Amino acid sequence: MAASVTAALLVIGDEILTGRTKDKNIGYIAEYLTGIGIDLREVRIVPDVEEEIVGAVNALRHRYTYLFTTGGIGPTHDDITADCIAKAFGVGIGHDPRAVAMLQERYQPGELNEARLRMARIPDGADLIENPISKAPGFRLGNVHVMAGVPAIMQAMLDNIAPSLKTGARMIIETIDATGLAEGNYAEGLAAIAAGHEGVTIGSYPSFTAEGFRNQIVVRGKDPDAVARAADAVRELLRRLKGDGAPL
Amino acid sequence: MAASVTAALLVIGDEILTGRTKDKNIGYIAEYLTGIGIDLREVRIVPDVEEEIVGAVNALRHRYTYLFTTGGIGPTHDDITADCIAKAFGVGIGHDPRAVAMLQERYQPGELNEARLRMARIPDGADLIENPISKAPGFRLGNVHVMAGVPAIMQAMLDNIAPSLKTGARMIIETIDATGLAEGNYAEGLAAIAAGHEGVTIGSYPSFTAEGFRNQIVVRGKDPDAVARAADAVRELLRRLKGDGAPL
Repeated sequence: MAASVTAALLVIGDEILTGRTKDKNIGYIAEYLTGIGIDLREVRIVPDVEEEIVGAVNALRHRYTYLFTTGGIGPTHDDITADCIAKAFGVGIGHDPRAVAMLQERYQPGELNEARLRMARIPDGADLIENPISKAPGFRLGNVHVMAGVPAIMQAMLDNIAPSLKTGARMIIETIDATGLAEGNYAEGLAAIAAGHEGVTIGSYPSFTAEGFRNQIVVRGKDPDAVARAADAVRELLRRLKGDGAPL
Repeated sequence: MAASVTAALLVIGDEILTGRTKDKNIGYIAEYLTGIGIDLREVRIVPDVEEEIVGAVNALRHRYTYLFTTGGIGPTHDDITADCIAKAFGVGIGHDPRAVAMLQERYQPGELNEARLRMARIPDGADLIENPISKAPGFRLGNVHVMAGVPAIMQAMLDNIAPSLKTGARMIIETIDATGLAEGNYAEGLAAIAAGHEGVTIGSYPSFTAEGFRNQIVVRGKDPDAVARAADAVRELLRRLKGDGAPL
């Protein structure tokens, strides 16, 4: 089986930590990476503070195959991500002529002022990530991919990045509805199945719906046969429990 | 001015990292804590893996006034948060008689099986956090508050915790609509205002709406006068720019 390809996500921005902006990127990126065979292993959200960003970038980029970041690459003074990435890597940063050319596609002569040119500040040695929506690019330096925070732009950048990423075996996920049974009734049987099936992880997820509590059991793994065997065992357990009249 | 009271949030669960479950707790907790005068400084999301949870708990609990966690306190084998907290603190863990009594309120005699009793496993020395919805309690150990992952239960637990928390001065947040101007036009003036107003932070947040790009400028701080002065300066800047016919 292919080795795992792993990733972390670093969300940068005071506005997420104050709750003013509700993040829409984490769930999207998690699902996207899982779908292409990259395991998202950790997410951090940090404020627009240089030492916090630099510290998180260096903690995460060494630990995982890839680090993705969102936020902080606009033209205003609180957009400090590019400078922080340069600092984390110990490289220089300046106006990248390729990025300036991209901005010139969007702005008329005379409009490309100093603030807008900040969006062309790219760490030395980085590749650009095209932004089809507002032109100001993201970039890749080493294994770090720096993307915008605005969801539509981030999503377009991720589509541009994806073909260049190494991917591993895709996670196979089987969801089995256990509504009508309580977690406490199937927990013991489920633990035995989990212990007896290597290479799969099994989770139980209760949630509230308009109709009341709903329980779902999720079997995950990268070996289709192992997932199928574990999922069959879970379905058999649920059938047995539903039939035996145990208290729910 | 009162000293800052700070917090971190640790979200525990594979299901968030695979994107299967979209987190609804981060934004809620961020807004809640900001509203009562606690500054959320960092968020991490980690999988249901003991060493990851223990490592994150110990990294975060020493750095901030409070650490809040969500997820992993149900009855199934993948619910390992309580054991990880005990390990992080180096204390024992066992069935807490107070927690057992709470579960006995919910379950009929004979229903309180071994799996359900797992929900009464509480680290030594912890205080319980009541769960009015499904009874299985959260707990507080030192400065760490352990809550459920199901949003409705987490929210009820947070309401129960809040009166016991130290709080600092509340963040005052003024939002100024800058739609009609481009970030690149006000970025330079905004940077000058930010540099000239101590004790406030100023952010600029573009977003897409059905009507196109929307820009909002947010002035934050704990001194009402300082926030008001900076917000006035921002409004004056925007008035000047809207009047002077600069390209948008």
